Amino acid sequence: MDLSKMVRKNLADIKPYVPGKPIEEVERELGIKNVIKMAANENPLGPSPKSVSAIQDLAAKAQIYPDGNCYYLKDALSQHWEVSPNQLMVGNGSDELLKLIAETFLLPGDEVVIGQPSFSEYIFAAKLMDAECIFVPLKDFTHDLSAMAEKITDKTKLLFVCNPNNPTGTVVTKQEVDDLMEKVPDNVMVIFDEAYYEYVQNQEYPKTLDYVKQGRKNVIILRTFSKVYGLAGLRIGYGIAHPEVISWIKRTMEPFNVNNFAQAAALAGIKDQNHVRESVQLNEAGKKQIYRGLEERGLSYVPTEANFIFIKVGVSSKELFPAMLQRGVIVRSGDIFGNEDYIRLTVGTEEQNKRFFDALDDSLAGLKIK
Amino acid sequence: MDLSKMVRKNLADIKPYVPGKPIEEVERELGIKNVIKMAANENPLGPSPKSVSAIQDLAAKAQIYPDGNCYYLKDALSQHWEVSPNQLMVGNGSDELLKLIAETFLLPGDEVVIGQPSFSEYIFAAKLMDAECIFVPLKDFTHDLSAMAEKITDKTKLLFVCNPNNPTGTVVTKQEVDDLMEKVPDNVMVIFDEAYYEYVQNQEYPKTLDYVKQGRKNVIILRTFSKVYGLAGLRIGYGIAHPEVISWIKRTMEPFNVNNFAQAAALAGIKDQNHVRESVQLNEAGKKQIYRGLEERGLSYVPTEANFIFIKVGVSSKELFPAMLQRGVIVRSGDIFGNEDYIRLTVGTEEQNKRFFDALDDSLAGLKIK
Repeated sequence: MDLSKMVRKNLADIKPYVPGKPIEEVERELGIKNVIKMAANENPLGPSPKSVSAIQDLAAKAQIYPDGNCYYLKDALSQHWEVSPNQLMVGNGSDELLKLIAETFLLPGDEVVIGQPSFSEYIFAAKLMDAECIFVPLKDFTHDLSAMAEKITDKTKLLFVCNPNNPTGTVVTKQEVDDLMEKVPDNVMVIFDEAYYEYVQNQEYPKTLDYVKQGRKNVIILRTFSKVYGLAGLRIGYGIAHPEVISWIKRTMEPFNVNNFAQAAALAGIKDQNHVRESVQLNEAGKKQIYRGLEERGLSYVPTEANFIFIKVGVSSKELFPAMLQRGVIVRSGDIFGNEDYIRLTVGTEEQNKRFFDALDDSLAGLKIK
Repeated sequence: MDLSKMVRKNLADIKPYVPGKPIEEVERELGIKNVIKMAANENPLGPSPKSVSAIQDLAAKAQIYPDGNCYYLKDALSQHWEVSPNQLMVGNGSDELLKLIAETFLLPGDEVVIGQPSFSEYIFAAKLMDAECIFVPLKDFTHDLSAMAEKITDKTKLLFVCNPNNPTGTVVTKQEVDDLMEKVPDNVMVIFDEAYYEYVQNQEYPKTLDYVKQGRKNVIILRTFSKVYGLAGLRIGYGIAHPEVISWIKRTMEPFNVNNFAQAAALAGIKDQNHVRESVQLNEAGKKQIYRGLEERGLSYVPTEANFIFIKVGVSSKELFPAMLQRGVIVRSGDIFGNEDYIRLTVGTEEQNKRFFDALDDSLAGLKIK
């Protein structure tokens, strides 16, 4: 039996995700210890202590199915953002919500407008539904919203704006988004992926929630508890949109998609805004420390509005990555984003940032500068 | 903007899942306390103490992304079942795996053969991909595999065997499955959903793993940690199949679909087979207690191979459900399965089973017997 004849043909175009080994395995194989990962944009402070307690309190009740409606979390989020619970959806990470959005709207041959480079899951979601990705290169490492608007055709269903953009850390402004929304037809859904929302310092960052509050139906905002809330390991993200949009997307959702522990930890996290502030402060201090270190070394970088920095390392990241790993520091190699001489570095604690520079100096000394 | 024109047409045929309120809310509204849920087939012993420790140990590291490959869990499962890790896939509950299977194989108009009544998620998965459900009524509350085989046409892609069947608790035998597998063409995928596998006592229960070990490509076995392992709240299930089947299905999977806590708790659980044995023993004792109680009351039931019992209550379950709820016991109403005068009862502890009978006696006394 040739399975390729039995499966949906478009899957052939999706590469199966090949994950790296767990850090513990890498350490064992390389014979090193205390490897630090500055590659996944995880909050180095971890989750709120209130989230930690919520998880521990639930542990002995793990047999209970989660609340399929995320009742208490939606209640808290609806108060926090001043929206109705029926304007909210919660997913197994915002990754899942991206997939559900694709499943809701995309037919084979539909077009999806995506900045390049941006978050890879938009491509996955589009390909899963056999839609076509229309890529629009970034301009100065930033989404080029006018160019994206020009790519809209009769076939366009979705347009993704990753803001701040992963992997570059840049934002588009309120003015740029207002201009975009004037041009976008009603039957094109604009998805603002704001996973790094809480880290943004730029005063011109748009309040996309206003579009939803004004009743626009072609806007979806995605947020997450994976970043500043420190809950990536539990998988929980949420979306805000018009109730009708939410209602359609929910039809594609499994009944118990968000685990109980994620719900409880997120609920505790949203009620601990002090932890959010501390995390953002640490990130700001880390950004300054890293900017300074890079400038001292004559390396350029893209100023960031998130908790990671896109750095021009001047050597092939394919060579730098293993050199850094040998020295116990995992960074994100830029070649996978099409920027081979860049890396994406998660902002760490003061100590982690120092270890990054030590490993970088050591590694670069051993590699030929281009 | 009329969203119904923008979404995939087949979604109109999927009812959005409308979950009940959390127990705490129900208690508050009814002004009662200590409501027990005997409706979701949760293990009344809870998870293994080893799973509880694993969860608690991870709590402060919730910011770390999960291992996208479930490396350690697959390693343990591959030893436990004597299969290769590439014959395994892990999902956000086996619910997710059902969806991924549908996304891998189903095109609009394809047919899916399903017993009726059986687990509702098969219908959801089929409808999501715009496939057609071909329902085959149970015979004596049991999957009628010959009748199902007869329903296979050129359009058939998937055939689901829920074994033990939810909601009736019955199993099909090795002989029946062998006969089925002889008739099924190579290009029809047979999915054995064995969520209640560990509870089965029947000696004729088939070892479907043998089909996978023999190299058959048209078999997928689904198991879960939600039932006997007591981890429903964390969402984790797994599948066993030919490596090529796994490889295709993985293309439809998000990179971090299974949270870290579920992986760690499942890994600890699989290593605590004593807890599994204790849980099964408690279930056996509970089954006897409930059978006896039902017989004393002259109520008939379907003997079960799982941790729930399908009981003919002789009144409308639509009326019995709220009466039981008022008395603090939540059961599963049979009308949603098309058996209006039945309920599905999860086997509880001795104390819970007593509370069930007290609430039942009280409720039935207040309802008119048909």
